[in-house]
Amino acid sequence: MIVYLNGKFLEQQKAAVSVADRGFIFGDGIYEVIRVVEGKFIMENEHLSRLDEGLNGLRIRLDEDIRTSIPEIGRELLKKNGHLTGEATVYLQVTRGAATPRTHEFPIDPVEPTLFMSTKPFKPHKKLHEMGTDAITLPDVRWMRCNLKTINLLPNTLAKQAAKDAGVNSAVMIRDGVITESPNANIFCVKNGVLHTFPSSNYILNGITRRAVLNIASQEEIPLVQEPVRLEEIAIIEELFFSGTTTDIQPVTVIDGKPVGNGKPGPVTRKIQKAYGKMLYSGNLSA
Amino acid sequence: MIVYLNGKFLEQQKAAVSVADRGFIFGDGIYEVIRVVEGKFIMENEHLSRLDEGLNGLRIRLDEDIRTSIPEIGRELLKKNGHLTGEATVYLQVTRGAATPRTHEFPIDPVEPTLFMSTKPFKPHKKLHEMGTDAITLPDVRWMRCNLKTINLLPNTLAKQAAKDAGVNSAVMIRDGVITESPNANIFCVKNGVLHTFPSSNYILNGITRRAVLNIASQEEIPLVQEPVRLEEIAIIEELFFSGTTTDIQPVTVIDGKPVGNGKPGPVTRKIQKAYGKMLYSGNLSA
Repeated sequence: MIVYLNGKFLEQQKAAVSVADRGFIFGDGIYEVIRVVEGKFIMENEHLSRLDEGLNGLRIRLDEDIRTSIPEIGRELLKKNGHLTGEATVYLQVTRGAATPRTHEFPIDPVEPTLFMSTKPFKPHKKLHEMGTDAITLPDVRWMRCNLKTINLLPNTLAKQAAKDAGVNSAVMIRDGVITESPNANIFCVKNGVLHTFPSSNYILNGITRRAVLNIASQEEIPLVQEPVRLEEIAIIEELFFSGTTTDIQPVTVIDGKPVGNGKPGPVTRKIQKAYGKMLYSGNLSA
Repeated sequence: MIVYLNGKFLEQQKAAVSVADRGFIFGDGIYEVIRVVEGKFIMENEHLSRLDEGLNGLRIRLDEDIRTSIPEIGRELLKKNGHLTGEATVYLQVTRGAATPRTHEFPIDPVEPTLFMSTKPFKPHKKLHEMGTDAITLPDVRWMRCNLKTINLLPNTLAKQAAKDAGVNSAVMIRDGVITESPNANIFCVKNGVLHTFPSSNYILNGITRRAVLNIASQEEIPLVQEPVRLEEIAIIEELFFSGTTTDIQPVTVIDGKPVGNGKPGPVTRKIQKAYGKMLYSGNLSA
C-alpha cells in the first residue's frame, strides 16, 4: 500500500516520522476519515472545513498550497492504490511537526507540520446495519474539548477495548448522567417519537454524518431536538442508533444486556438509514 | 545526540517510527522523565514503578527483559551523549507499537511495543526557584484519568501555550472550582499555616516530586492535608508552589496579576526547597 507523507508517495512500510514529531510525543495533531464511493469523496467540503476548524483550534499553520492540494493528494493516492473503484476511505492526519527540544508550549521557531495520508478499501458493516448491534454503557472520561477531532484518542481506544472485553461491539458513553457519544460515533435516540441527540458543544464531536442525519430529519419531517437523553431513560426509549463516517447509521438493539425498545431496529432508524444510503450512493450514480 | 529506539542506539535525526505507530495515531503510550545528577538517577525506583503502573493501566505488554534493561539503556545513552557529568534528564516513552489496520481497540495480533529513550543536559531553573514565578488560572479540561502519565498531552500543551500567550510562565488549572495541577507540575498551597495539595486520585498525576514533598513535610513536621484549595481561596493563601521532576520546588508569587501572600516566596516553600535540594544533591555527593 502506498501512503503520502510530507510531499512524498511511498510504501507504507517505509513511511516513518521523526521521534521528535509532536504527534508522537504529545498527540499534538488532528485527523479526518473521509468516505469514498467509486472515487467520489462523500461530503468532502464538510470534512475539509472541519479539518480547517481543527487546524485553527490547535493553531497548526499548514501551508496554504499544501492544504489546498489535500483532495488532489487523496485522489492520487486512491489511484495509486487501486481504490478508485468500489468503496474506500481516505485517512488524513496533520501534526504540529517535529520539534526539539521537547517543550509543552508550541515550538518557538515554527516547524513544518507533518501531513500523513493513507487509503484503504472499505466494506460497509451491512450485517450490523441490518440486524443491529450491542453495546455497554461506560463513563465518558474524555477531555472537555471533544469538538476537536484530535489524535488524543486514548479514552476512545480504552472504551472500545472495554466493550470488546465485555463481548460487545461498542459503548454508549455517559457523562454527568447523560448519553454523549460512542468511542467513534455520534448517538441518536428516539424518545416518545422524537429524535434526540446531544447538542453540538465542547462535549461531543459534531460528526459529519451527524449533520447529515440532522438534515435528513428535517427533510423527512422527523421531529428532532438537540437535547441529551439520560442514562436511566435507556430503559424507556424506543430506538437508539450510532452515526459516523464508517459506522453509517447503525441500530443499537441491546445495551447492557437489555433490549432497546422491542430489541429490533426501529422505523425511525430504518427511515434515516434509507435516506442516508440514498445520499451516499445515488449522488455517486449521478456523478 | 544519540537516542535509543527499539534496540538500537542511533542519531536523533535518523530515529523515526512507523506512521502506523499507535503513539502517532492515537497517543497510545506513556512516558517518564527522570532527573540525573552526576550519572545518578534521582528516585529511579519510583519512576520505574510508575512506568509499570502506566504500562499496566494501558495494558501495554513490554517484554520483561527490555523492561529490566531500561536503567542500563539510560546509563549507556548518558555515556554516549557525555551526560554522565553534571545534570541531565532521561526521557523514556513506550507506545503500544505499530499496527495496521487502524482500529480503536488493541491490535488483535499483539505487536511489539515501541521503546524510545533520549537524554539531554539539564540546568535547574535557579532564578525561578529564587525569585518565584507567575501564572494564570485556567480551566483544567483534561480527561478523567490524569493519574496515568500518558502522551495524550494536548490539554497540557494548550494550557502551557495559553500561559505563554498571556505573558506568564505557567498556569494553575481549576476543575470544579478547585486547584488541581499546573500543565506539567503538581501544586501545593499553604493555607492557615497548613500545606494543602489535591488528593492523589484520578484527577491528578501523583508526581514523584509530589511524593518527595509529602515525605519532606512529614520529616520536617510541616502540617499537611491532601485536600484541594478553592479558586477563590487563592486570594487568602500564604504561599503556593509547583513541584515536578524538572520544575523542582518552584514558588509561584503572582497569579492572575495579583500577589500570592506577600508576593514573595514564603518560609514553608523555602524549607521544602532546602530539604528537597539536599535530597537531590547530597545523595549524589555520597554516591
